[in-house]
Amino acid sequence: MLTGADVAKHNSSESLWMIINGKAYDLTEFQTNHPGGQKILLKFAGRDATEEYEPIHPPGTIEEALPADKHLGEVDMSTLLPEQKIIEQAVPKPTTAGDAPMTLGACLNLDDIEKAAERLLKPKAWAYYRSAADDERTHNWNRESFYSVRLRPRVLRDVTTVDLSASILGHTSSLPIYISPAAMGRLAHPDGEKCLARVAAAHQIPYMVSANASVGFEELASQAKEGQILFYQLYVNRDRAKSEDILRRVAKAICVTVDAPVAGKRERDERAKLDDEAASDPNMQKAVKSTGPDAPDAPQDEPSQGIAQALGSYVDPTLAWHDLEWVRKASGGLPIIVKGIQCAEDAALAAKNGAQAIILSNHGGRQLEGAPSSLETLLEIRKFEPWVLKKLEVWCDGGFRRGTDVLKAIALGARCVGIGRPFMYSLVFGDEGVNKVATVLREELAQNARLMGATSMTEVVPSMVNARELEQNVYNGPYESPVRALAKL
Amino acid sequence: MLTGADVAKHNSSESLWMIINGKAYDLTEFQTNHPGGQKILLKFAGRDATEEYEPIHPPGTIEEALPADKHLGEVDMSTLLPEQKIIEQAVPKPTTAGDAPMTLGACLNLDDIEKAAERLLKPKAWAYYRSAADDERTHNWNRESFYSVRLRPRVLRDVTTVDLSASILGHTSSLPIYISPAAMGRLAHPDGEKCLARVAAAHQIPYMVSANASVGFEELASQAKEGQILFYQLYVNRDRAKSEDILRRVAKAICVTVDAPVAGKRERDERAKLDDEAASDPNMQKAVKSTGPDAPDAPQDEPSQGIAQALGSYVDPTLAWHDLEWVRKASGGLPIIVKGIQCAEDAALAAKNGAQAIILSNHGGRQLEGAPSSLETLLEIRKFEPWVLKKLEVWCDGGFRRGTDVLKAIALGARCVGIGRPFMYSLVFGDEGVNKVATVLREELAQNARLMGATSMTEVVPSMVNARELEQNVYNGPYESPVRALAKL
Amino acid sequence: MLTGADVAKHNSSESLWMIINGKAYDLTEFQTNHPGGQKILLKFAGRDATEEYEPIHPPGTIEEALPADKHLGEVDMSTLLPEQKIIEQAVPKPTTAGDAPMTLGACLNLDDIEKAAERLLKPKAWAYYRSAADDERTHNWNRESFYSVRLRPRVLRDVTTVDLSASILGHTSSLPIYISPAAMGRLAHPDGEKCLARVAAAHQIPYMVSANASVGFEELASQAKEGQILFYQLYVNRDRAKSEDILRRVAKAICVTVDAPVAGKRERDERAKLDDEAASDPNMQKAVKSTGPDAPDAPQDEPSQGIAQALGSYVDPTLAWHDLEWVRKASGGLPIIVKGIQCAEDAALAAKNGAQAIILSNHGGRQLEGAPSSLETLLEIRKFEPWVLKKLEVWCDGGFRRGTDVLKAIALGARCVGIGRPFMYSLVFGDEGVNKVATVLREELAQNARLMGATSMTEVVPSMVNARELEQNVYNGPYESPVRALAKL
Amino acid sequence: MLTGADVAKHNSSESLWMIINGKAYDLTEFQTNHPGGQKILLKFAGRDATEEYEPIHPPGTIEEALPADKHLGEVDMSTLLPEQKIIEQAVPKPTTAGDAPMTLGACLNLDDIEKAAERLLKPKAWAYYRSAADDERTHNWNRESFYSVRLRPRVLRDVTTVDLSASILGHTSSLPIYISPAAMGRLAHPDGEKCLARVAAAHQIPYMVSANASVGFEELASQAKEGQILFYQLYVNRDRAKSEDILRRVAKAICVTVDAPVAGKRERDERAKLDDEAASDPNMQKAVKSTGPDAPDAPQDEPSQGIAQALGSYVDPTLAWHDLEWVRKASGGLPIIVKGIQCAEDAALAAKNGAQAIILSNHGGRQLEGAPSSLETLLEIRKFEPWVLKKLEVWCDGGFRRGTDVLKAIALGARCVGIGRPFMYSLVFGDEGVNKVATVLREELAQNARLMGATSMTEVVPSMVNARELEQNVYNGPYESPVRALAKL
Repeated sequence: MLTGADVAKHNSSESLWMIINGKAYDLTEFQTNHPGGQKILLKFAGRDATEEYEPIHPPGTIEEALPADKHLGEVDMSTLLPEQKIIEQAVPKPTTAGDAPMTLGACLNLDDIEKAAERLLKPKAWAYYRSAADDERTHNWNRESFYSVRLRPRVLRDVTTVDLSASILGHTSSLPIYISPAAMGRLAHPDGEKCLARVAAAHQIPYMVSANASVGFEELASQAKEGQILFYQLYVNRDRAKSEDILRRVAKAICVTVDAPVAGKRERDERAKLDDEAASDPNMQKAVKSTGPDAPDAPQDEPSQGIAQALGSYVDPTLAWHDLEWVRKASGGLPIIVKGIQCAEDAALAAKNGAQAIILSNHGGRQLEGAPSSLETLLEIRKFEPWVLKKLEVWCDGGFRRGTDVLKAIALGARCVGIGRPFMYSLVFGDEGVNKVATVLREELAQNARLMGATSMTEVVPSMVNARELEQNVYNGPYESPVRALAKL
Repeated sequence: MLTGADVAKHNSSESLWMIINGKAYDLTEFQTNHPGGQKILLKFAGRDATEEYEPIHPPGTIEEALPADKHLGEVDMSTLLPEQKIIEQAVPKPTTAGDAPMTLGACLNLDDIEKAAERLLKPKAWAYYRSAADDERTHNWNRESFYSVRLRPRVLRDVTTVDLSASILGHTSSLPIYISPAAMGRLAHPDGEKCLARVAAAHQIPYMVSANASVGFEELASQAKEGQILFYQLYVNRDRAKSEDILRRVAKAICVTVDAPVAGKRERDERAKLDDEAASDPNMQKAVKSTGPDAPDAPQDEPSQGIAQALGSYVDPTLAWHDLEWVRKASGGLPIIVKGIQCAEDAALAAKNGAQAIILSNHGGRQLEGAPSSLETLLEIRKFEPWVLKKLEVWCDGGFRRGTDVLKAIALGARCVGIGRPFMYSLVFGDEGVNKVATVLREELAQNARLMGATSMTEVVPSMVNARELEQNVYNGPYESPVRALAKL
Repeated sequence: MLTGADVAKHNSSESLWMIINGKAYDLTEFQTNHPGGQKILLKFAGRDATEEYEPIHPPGTIEEALPADKHLGEVDMSTLLPEQKIIEQAVPKPTTAGDAPMTLGACLNLDDIEKAAERLLKPKAWAYYRSAADDERTHNWNRESFYSVRLRPRVLRDVTTVDLSASILGHTSSLPIYISPAAMGRLAHPDGEKCLARVAAAHQIPYMVSANASVGFEELASQAKEGQILFYQLYVNRDRAKSEDILRRVAKAICVTVDAPVAGKRERDERAKLDDEAASDPNMQKAVKSTGPDAPDAPQDEPSQGIAQALGSYVDPTLAWHDLEWVRKASGGLPIIVKGIQCAEDAALAAKNGAQAIILSNHGGRQLEGAPSSLETLLEIRKFEPWVLKKLEVWCDGGFRRGTDVLKAIALGARCVGIGRPFMYSLVFGDEGVNKVATVLREELAQNARLMGATSMTEVVPSMVNARELEQNVYNGPYESPVRALAKL
Repeated sequence: MLTGADVAKHNSSESLWMIINGKAYDLTEFQTNHPGGQKILLKFAGRDATEEYEPIHPPGTIEEALPADKHLGEVDMSTLLPEQKIIEQAVPKPTTAGDAPMTLGACLNLDDIEKAAERLLKPKAWAYYRSAADDERTHNWNRESFYSVRLRPRVLRDVTTVDLSASILGHTSSLPIYISPAAMGRLAHPDGEKCLARVAAAHQIPYMVSANASVGFEELASQAKEGQILFYQLYVNRDRAKSEDILRRVAKAICVTVDAPVAGKRERDERAKLDDEAASDPNMQKAVKSTGPDAPDAPQDEPSQGIAQALGSYVDPTLAWHDLEWVRKASGGLPIIVKGIQCAEDAALAAKNGAQAIILSNHGGRQLEGAPSSLETLLEIRKFEPWVLKKLEVWCDGGFRRGTDVLKAIALGARCVGIGRPFMYSLVFGDEGVNKVATVLREELAQNARLMGATSMTEVVPSMVNARELEQNVYNGPYESPVRALAKL
């Protein structure tokens, strides 16, 4: 058995050892292939990286990534030197919103939970969850695009009881809402995605598990309740065999994410990593101080990739429409959900290619700055390819925070709505936090439906919304339906 | 006769006594049924709650709510222990607007009065009056929707004299304005709604009394001047008998509020109550300090309901169009005003169902975030159901603060306009404050009418406003007139 | 000859004497008729009010207002007691813009001059010049309405020389610009309007003298250069005889202001007066401190009128279209300019009633909040009554600050543009300041015309501007041409 | 050989000597002809001005400007008195953005580089690069006009490889990007434009050299790589002979800038010069303190011209369309690029007059406030003169900062896009900075193209953008095609 001192000597790029979960690994050869970059490995060279490693790597990552001879075996953890342990404290910090609530009890809505999370999460976790592409305009627009849509409530209807349930791919959800797939739950809470799965079961709403979940799908599946609606979000890997293996373990439906052939430019995430590295690297700190216009020849590093870039490198950029057939077969005929549709043409293609559901989504504004909000794409489909709404289920995500946001999408034809970041933020409070998000949405939906004069989701119809302001900017240029094109073949 | 010490012993949920107006009551059994929540009762357990109770409960509330055996009789108030008296001071406080005027003389307009009220009212009163639904966007939009409407003034007309009077349901009001119904006037002034009634009489404008007024309608009616125009705003209670009883006592017209089958989510109000409870509860204060992500299992309370939620639970969510017939009969054939119309379809239904007036209103933005402003609904009626404007009187409320706001609505066809919050805010200055609001509006209206070239309200016509910017966003989707539908039956 | 002590005794409303320009007056009976209110008189009771009186009263005001027996004769000014002299210092003060220039040399544009004036003018002068109606939205909109109009410059034209002159009512102005009428120039500089007249002559641009100028028209006329273009702005007084008297003395054209039958609500101006009174009145200061919600019965004064209200009371609200005939005759057939047209109907009426020019104006946003900007009215005339542009000269004012602003109006058909506040602000620097404004405009116009590819004002044509954004909000409702109506008669 | 003391005596306007690059010059007669004004010369009278002179004058300027007898010969620089050397330190300064990065490594995008430059450049350099016309609204609008254009990305296309190259006037550029012409590179870095030329060569993108480059074109040309694409931007000088001389030395194409017959009003630049002069002139500092409204007769200087005004005076305002023929001949038949087209009419005229490319440009918002953004002009051409897009190459510049900005222009028909200020800002970091800008753009373009589903620039088509919001404000007024007009001749 190795001692702390044995490992501590291998603390440079010449020989780079690291301890994870009580075992040592030799990363000397691997270091330049690390999707998260070499620099972060050097920070932990000769040290125990468990706390850092755990929440951002799916189980088994290092075991699969390294050949057996680089597995150096167990370390006697009682022999670790003090400097080999790096423990980062999550200390409450000032936020951009001065009035951020600190307790779940003080959170009245989903924005409160976001503010609390900004204050309570570790900076790296906050940066990963919150970050979006480029200048985050699309992220913000997702939210703002609801504001211009006015409701048209009806009065003097008996609204004593209201039924909020929705039929989603044949399953009954108690709300027209599902938990969107998002990675790295353990950045916020040791139980990570397990909290999401438990609360989804309790609320009888679907949970779509991310391929990058920090808790393995098997582990989540094994704790699932009878009849729980779990979907699996697939990033089709460059390694197809690996994908097939995952697919076979999946339950009720497969989601293929199509808007991420490469990862978006998430600068908040990248900056968090730069800060992290700068904080730990004395040489770098020095560079920050002395490099300037008078030192143009000082060595300049390539900007570090954030967590998103590291995760993104697993995705297959060759994925194309015909691959849906392969997904269907590989998954044994499970319903297919195509996530990331952003124009009417692709909605039509998804329908033609046999998808059971599409998710109008710009990936929470994390991929392409300038992409339309899901409401805009929904209006575009209503304009150019209205038949799609009958052929398959249209789901929406991106910026939904209030009950009225959800009802606006439902009124315009969406079957249900995915909520992502708010659930991730709520993980800082564990199960209770996740439950709070679901409960707030349930209460707001019930109240708002009543105030609109609707007693069920089917009564929420197009004439209950005035989306004219948004419609005036729906695409108006040259349009060629790919279905007509296909029909000609 | 009980002593302070007798009551002081019953200071917990096991045995919960309270003193109100010199009498003690046993609330042990009632505590979980209190619409305002149990927690606030515990705050006053064993104490004198008169000052807190008075302004937010209509007269007789506790007497009616408790069975006779819980009336414990009089208390010798000279024996009260110091800690049994809780007196909250209203201390002038900094406001969001740094330049808030502190005297009525320094108030030049209705916004000044709002700023003064923010500074001078008790926090709970300010929160109740000011709060609006969700993120308060509809509240703000009510105000902003006037800004895009441009006036088209006419010059070189003789405007020496200008007649501001309006005929409202056959009564002559000296202004095209009435006081909107709002609850809890005694939060701002000991005389509460009595101030409103007195000034309305002096100015010869209608006052619509809220069903939740903190002064009983009988008391207000008994001080009414000869010929004073009082309307009664009815929240049809779950207890119909109680409603009928109220209706029989009413004078000139009945207003049925239809946009509040449940109360809106008024977070400012809820937060004020949370603050209030936290300030008084040492255990809670502790929780605020220690609960955080490291203490996810700490007990979490349901968010407290504000005053609005407590009041809202009296409303009947089963109310429907056919109930207007019952209201008419129960009131002995009084004219019916339907308050809370938010789309053209419902305006048509109100006309069909025999209403004499409708109020285009989103409840001051307090109910459904995303509802249209009254100007928008007015334009929608002009577009889809213009006949309604001839069949009944159309009134508007929500965000009116300036003479020009009123004239814009009049020009587009409104008969008169309701002013709510400004009058409630002005109560902080008593009768003089209320008079100031009416006087400022009178002066602005006279000046503005002259500058528009109009010498009476009938000369304020559609061609005097340019509402094109607003019209461009009027609903344009599928429209089916409910009147045509009814005609087919 | 009276002594200071003689006057000092009459320092209350019972007996109210005042010294102006070395003479004493008895204002005891007059005090309640003072258009500026009684309170300000009490402030100066028994004292020398010359410094306060001078800049805000046209010459001869007090002599005409008081009967001969109230003229008490000369005072030996060497005998004045120290407390009889009230001298207000104009001390440079912080401004809303932190970077206000302090010297004329540091002023690069008209906004700089405004910022300097805010800092250097006495508060009362700044408030009077700068104030606008209500919330000053129309004032701000005047400025903003230029921003949405895009230019369409032409390149590769020979622009070596550019002719900026314009023909205005048959006179040649060196710029398509005139100085708008504004009152109270002596608030900023001892020479007051004389500076404006001198610089207008030097630049060969028209100067329209205000009826409320703080320098008499005779005095201005007497210093006029040969051929100088002076217009006279007439507020038709309640006293017609007085108007006729003024008209007979006038030279090149008469301007009838039609948008001010009553003065607008200029709250900045009113607040300045309130501040002024509060500062001087110890009793009032006390009231400010102690009056609050707990003192609802404290005496409340009517809000003081600012300078604008005081001036406004001279205007005749009975003025109507047929009075233009009287103006023409009374002035001996001078061309008539109608100032304050705000809709196409009135533009047509002005043409029908024989006006030679109209000024599209909302009085600098000082009268009716919600009025259209002059660009909007110009577009409305182009839409509904385009013939008016050929029948008479259309001038514009309100918010013009840059050379491009002027060119936009010229391109859309305006003959010339009035500049008001910038010239008033510039008076703080005397002749040099006024000259700076004219010079900056000249330089910007020359440069901008060249960059647009125009070498004279007649080459600035409609296709050089893209006003589509503004056009989309031009009035679109019911329109009945008054000319057609008149034609039927 | 002269000594420092010899020169130091000639330190006033009576006799004004100056040292530049070790040689003395007599500027006594020239001082009033200096395009940059006399005042700045007086600041350096009797002193060594090399550091100030060098970066803002093209090589040989003073030698050509002064007759031989004013060349006083070499100075023994070891004899300079301390006060003869004026060395300005560029000290990092606070910026408007609090979070400006200080190192190139911390810069993730082009805005970061701008923020770093604001902090690290000398104030005068920052002012010159950053300044724009008037209130800089057009400068800002250039940037904002991208935000309203939404992308319409396509998914499930194989985007493994993406080709970013573009054919520009027959040359292959590795990116659809060129470096825009801008003057005074040596203000930021001693190597100045040489850095731009080197990095353009390394990246195989075109570099358009400014006529006002602070490094001579010969020097740049002499270090050019084999096949490097250099264009030359010609400001046709008043001295035509000089222009012809320059033209003959040029390589691949000639750019005629047509939007600068006079320089724009760049107030940031002018203020920087005012600050500079005030800082050095004790008399002026005194004036700043004492001049105010009480000193209206204090001497007032004309506002100083900034660098832009000084440079602008070399441009020929008589340049017209027929001169393109002269340019063509003088350059020996090189392709002609017309830079500064701002309306569809002029695009058509450029095509008619034989231009090979036009650049839709408003000179980075530096010339005419109110000019359209290049995207707007592109949409206008698509509407009125679509044939132009086939007849010649349409390039765009102004406000491009992100990969998606570039793709939006490409989708709407632009061949390539010019990047100006970011490259100038990046000079503060020398070659590495310039390389960073090119590299960031390359990475963003590759990533964004993939996310849009495009694998080459030709796949970026009109249906990939939704520009409806912008289209709604495209010019809609009277339009007469100059081509039709020409056809009639």
